[in-house]
Amino acid sequence: MLLLRRCHGLTRFGRPHFQRRHLAPAVLSHARLCSSKDNKSDWHFSGFCWRHGLAGLLAGAGAVIAFGLQRHKADQPAAAAQTTESISALPVFSQEEVSKHRSLSDGVWVTYRGGVYDITEFVAMHPGGEKILLAAGGALEPFWALYAVHNQEHVLEILSEYKVGELCIEDLKKQEPAESSDPYSSDPERHPVLRINSHKPFNAEPPPEILTDSYITPSAVFFKRNHLPVPQVDPASYQLQVEGLPGGGVTFSLEDLKTRFPKHDVTATVQCAGNRRSEMDRVKQVKGLSWGIAAISNAKWSGARLRDVLLAAGYGPDVAQWARHVHFEGLDKDVTGAAYGASIPLNKAVSEEGDVLLAYEMNGEKIPPDHGFPVRVVVPGVVGARSVKWVGKIVVSAEESSSHWQQNDYKGFSPGTDWDTVDYKSAPAIQELPVQSAITLPADGALIDSSDGSLTVKGYAWSGGGREVVRVDVSLDGGQTWQVAELKSGDEGQAPKPPPPPGRAWAWKLWELTAPLPPQVQELEIICKAVDSSYNVQPETFAPIWNLRGVLSNAWHRVTVKITED
Amino acid sequence: MLLLRRCHGLTRFGRPHFQRRHLAPAVLSHARLCSSKDNKSDWHFSGFCWRHGLAGLLAGAGAVIAFGLQRHKADQPAAAAQTTESISALPVFSQEEVSKHRSLSDGVWVTYRGGVYDITEFVAMHPGGEKILLAAGGALEPFWALYAVHNQEHVLEILSEYKVGELCIEDLKKQEPAESSDPYSSDPERHPVLRINSHKPFNAEPPPEILTDSYITPSAVFFKRNHLPVPQVDPASYQLQVEGLPGGGVTFSLEDLKTRFPKHDVTATVQCAGNRRSEMDRVKQVKGLSWGIAAISNAKWSGARLRDVLLAAGYGPDVAQWARHVHFEGLDKDVTGAAYGASIPLNKAVSEEGDVLLAYEMNGEKIPPDHGFPVRVVVPGVVGARSVKWVGKIVVSAEESSSHWQQNDYKGFSPGTDWDTVDYKSAPAIQELPVQSAITLPADGALIDSSDGSLTVKGYAWSGGGREVVRVDVSLDGGQTWQVAELKSGDEGQAPKPPPPPGRAWAWKLWELTAPLPPQVQELEIICKAVDSSYNVQPETFAPIWNLRGVLSNAWHRVTVKITED
Repeated sequence: MLLLRRCHGLTRFGRPHFQRRHLAPAVLSHARLCSSKDNKSDWHFSGFCWRHGLAGLLAGAGAVIAFGLQRHKADQPAAAAQTTESISALPVFSQEEVSKHRSLSDGVWVTYRGGVYDITEFVAMHPGGEKILLAAGGALEPFWALYAVHNQEHVLEILSEYKVGELCIEDLKKQEPAESSDPYSSDPERHPVLRINSHKPFNAEPPPEILTDSYITPSAVFFKRNHLPVPQVDPASYQLQVEGLPGGGVTFSLEDLKTRFPKHDVTATVQCAGNRRSEMDRVKQVKGLSWGIAAISNAKWSGARLRDVLLAAGYGPDVAQWARHVHFEGLDKDVTGAAYGASIPLNKAVSEEGDVLLAYEMNGEKIPPDHGFPVRVVVPGVVGARSVKWVGKIVVSAEESSSHWQQNDYKGFSPGTDWDTVDYKSAPAIQELPVQSAITLPADGALIDSSDGSLTVKGYAWSGGGREVVRVDVSLDGGQTWQVAELKSGDEGQAPKPPPPPGRAWAWKLWELTAPLPPQVQELEIICKAVDSSYNVQPETFAPIWNLRGVLSNAWHRVTVKITED
Repeated sequence: MLLLRRCHGLTRFGRPHFQRRHLAPAVLSHARLCSSKDNKSDWHFSGFCWRHGLAGLLAGAGAVIAFGLQRHKADQPAAAAQTTESISALPVFSQEEVSKHRSLSDGVWVTYRGGVYDITEFVAMHPGGEKILLAAGGALEPFWALYAVHNQEHVLEILSEYKVGELCIEDLKKQEPAESSDPYSSDPERHPVLRINSHKPFNAEPPPEILTDSYITPSAVFFKRNHLPVPQVDPASYQLQVEGLPGGGVTFSLEDLKTRFPKHDVTATVQCAGNRRSEMDRVKQVKGLSWGIAAISNAKWSGARLRDVLLAAGYGPDVAQWARHVHFEGLDKDVTGAAYGASIPLNKAVSEEGDVLLAYEMNGEKIPPDHGFPVRVVVPGVVGARSVKWVGKIVVSAEESSSHWQQNDYKGFSPGTDWDTVDYKSAPAIQELPVQSAITLPADGALIDSSDGSLTVKGYAWSGGGREVVRVDVSLDGGQTWQVAELKSGDEGQAPKPPPPPGRAWAWKLWELTAPLPPQVQELEIICKAVDSSYNVQPETFAPIWNLRGVLSNAWHRVTVKITED
């Protein structure tokens, strides 16, 4: 506190109608500001608003929220200037003073657009956990540029609760160049048909009506789910490090992967843990990207088997004695250099029947930048989050990955678990996904011409763990009666494929039912539900599987259509 | 028809008030008799009765029905005599004539307690298919003694529709010794606490309240599910044949299995496909034994690994090129010598992680007769029907077992599929089972003393395929809110076990929740639902998973209790 008011420009900071109480330096580091009825600001921090906003922040680092996404004031050039025109009753700090608060013991301070915030108390509530400490003692802007989830009005509202002062104008000016760099500026162009859930990082899905037009999803419309900016990787200098095996680390070039190991083709469906989240959100708000039914796609992947590469790198029975997990680290990194990461169980990685690939081709061509160029992991039958793109490092380990996305995200909880009670350690990381299906035709709300007398319903069905979909039931009357759809394992005109071996059905089934229109109805509720080879079924409704992150959203899919006479 | 009326005693056969029409020999073999309003008999064969009864018969050979099981008249010594005292208007046939009708082309005739029946038209409707032809040209009694499902009033009613004549008294007398032998006479004694669903074959389950008293179910109360009489096997002369491998068949004695292969212990839960069928039956009638919630139990099995035995018998990579299934045949046989049989996929049988045992111990002692003495198969994570008891033969094959129980039973169908439309070839044989759980305490309808202020709920949870149960949600308010139960992998006081490797969680979890009683309620609907490691969940209700055989009955378990003040 020695540097208090050492800088110029004090009187130009702060909000004119903002009454700061308890300014004594001794309590500043613990001060939390709540609105009160005698405070006529437009900052309304009732208990409800606080919880609502906290939940937003809690979606955290990788858990990107896009619903209600707004460009916040950092994107409005005049905002900072407006703020600095105001008169603040808060103390002014230098960057040097802020930099001293970089730990829980010294307090955790950050700056944001000229404000200084003591977020010590918030650290424990941040779902990314200590990841928030990366910003300690410095500016939030580079992190928020990376994690655009923070660009929401209510996140700013929460931050304001922790405001303890202003940054002196000279130090604020020094930050500006850093703010102007956009880590997403080199992201690739995307197909305009995609429905975008989040621009930075880029997350998008194809329109449902084109999703099941082809058994193999064209790469351009394959759903995109990025956690960070797309890295620029030079294939000539690309190196895959393999660590944790006897004899030390081994590296493989792209050429090594292509020439030293047999090339395997695996047709596998990849599904985001949050596919169909928007439906679960209708029951009760969940946090995460508002995916429709198309955060799932199917491609032919080609590359070296992970098993073969691990064996070449030194994996053997001795390693099997102690190793339990295989970690993957992406080359997509945040501003601190921390990579996207995940792990899978060792037995999936090394099994001859696991079919895990280090893929360098997607649908017969080099993998596009959005899907992991030059090399990505493809873990068939497992949630997409473990199929790490732009893979740069593989580590064989006794422990699961400590990555945020393995430990504090992509897990399922009871409907009774909320953000106050959630304990991420109590649930396993999602690996195999449960059985899923959805109707892609007709669309919800469509008008159906009754003159044909019949109705065609189409969709997809898939299950995790290599469990083949063995039946899809379709109801045209809201679940009163059911008909069995025709299942397809390829496109029209293709020779039928032999059934996959048990437990290795990695690709979806497309399905179709043409049935007479029930007479004299004006509206139909169409439902589909799939059954997999272990006779697992989809749950009927979302409420009993509701979970705070909106993952594993696999209840029956329902669309309502209107029947017209003409 | 040349032998018509060649025997004595014609006038002593038949029912006096029974009007047989269309007696011309040319049509007799196709004649079917239905009741009509002008027929005042007590035999009422309306269309409804026909279908109802047919469904009963359709449950067929191994698919034993016990609901409404009644000792039929064959067990009443006077019945045959009473019948023969009546005067019949039907022709009399000799056994020699009956014996000529043993094929669909010659007609299929059978005798039953002095009656002659042309069942040619019924053959196609028999779920055991051509198994019914085993009785062609002869007496039904030996088969019905084996398959006690037939011992029901409505089965007799259906049979009567096909009556075409009477057996001459001399030939009837010759049958009597055969009828007096009871293939179940050497079945073992059973624990009196068991709740019996069927005596012959013996099928019984423990009371739910004792099921979860111990993590390892004592063998005496482990549920019993026999398809045939318990065979008497001499352990000294026991031979296990292994066929289908290069070099011809190999046999192993019990001593071989115990000494030539490492002894492995696997704690595995076994569940009948029909567990909880009685609940599904409440939605709409299904066919099969009316199991409660306790056709599931957990034991420690010890024996040789099937994988090791197959390797010793000649299994290798060359066999893996063409083989896809491993068949098991029991030493329990029907009167024709046909054994109980089933098969599992080859990869389950030979995988190091499949843990399939040829078990000679159950809970540390030699396997009891009811559970497969001296050797049974234990296929962890798979429906009990594939864990063949008293195993006598193993066959490695490119094809699935052709056994009735593999092809025409133990399969799941859509709720829209009925006995008129079912095509058993359209569904896969059940192998891995879906996630399951049930409440064993309190019992449905129990009175709960509210003076404690709290309520303890207990139960079990398990899933197939080695998928560990990761959570059990319990609701005390009919599903409005949920609490997470405590999971247990052993008995109280036991050291906690390390978690099983992924995909090898073969044993159930017991679970318990103690929660405050909601204030001022007089009745609670308690529900449990489990989640497995692939995040599969149980369906909410039975109607959407209803299937004509009442298998895979894994909807939420619900019990209603009353709260008392004292």
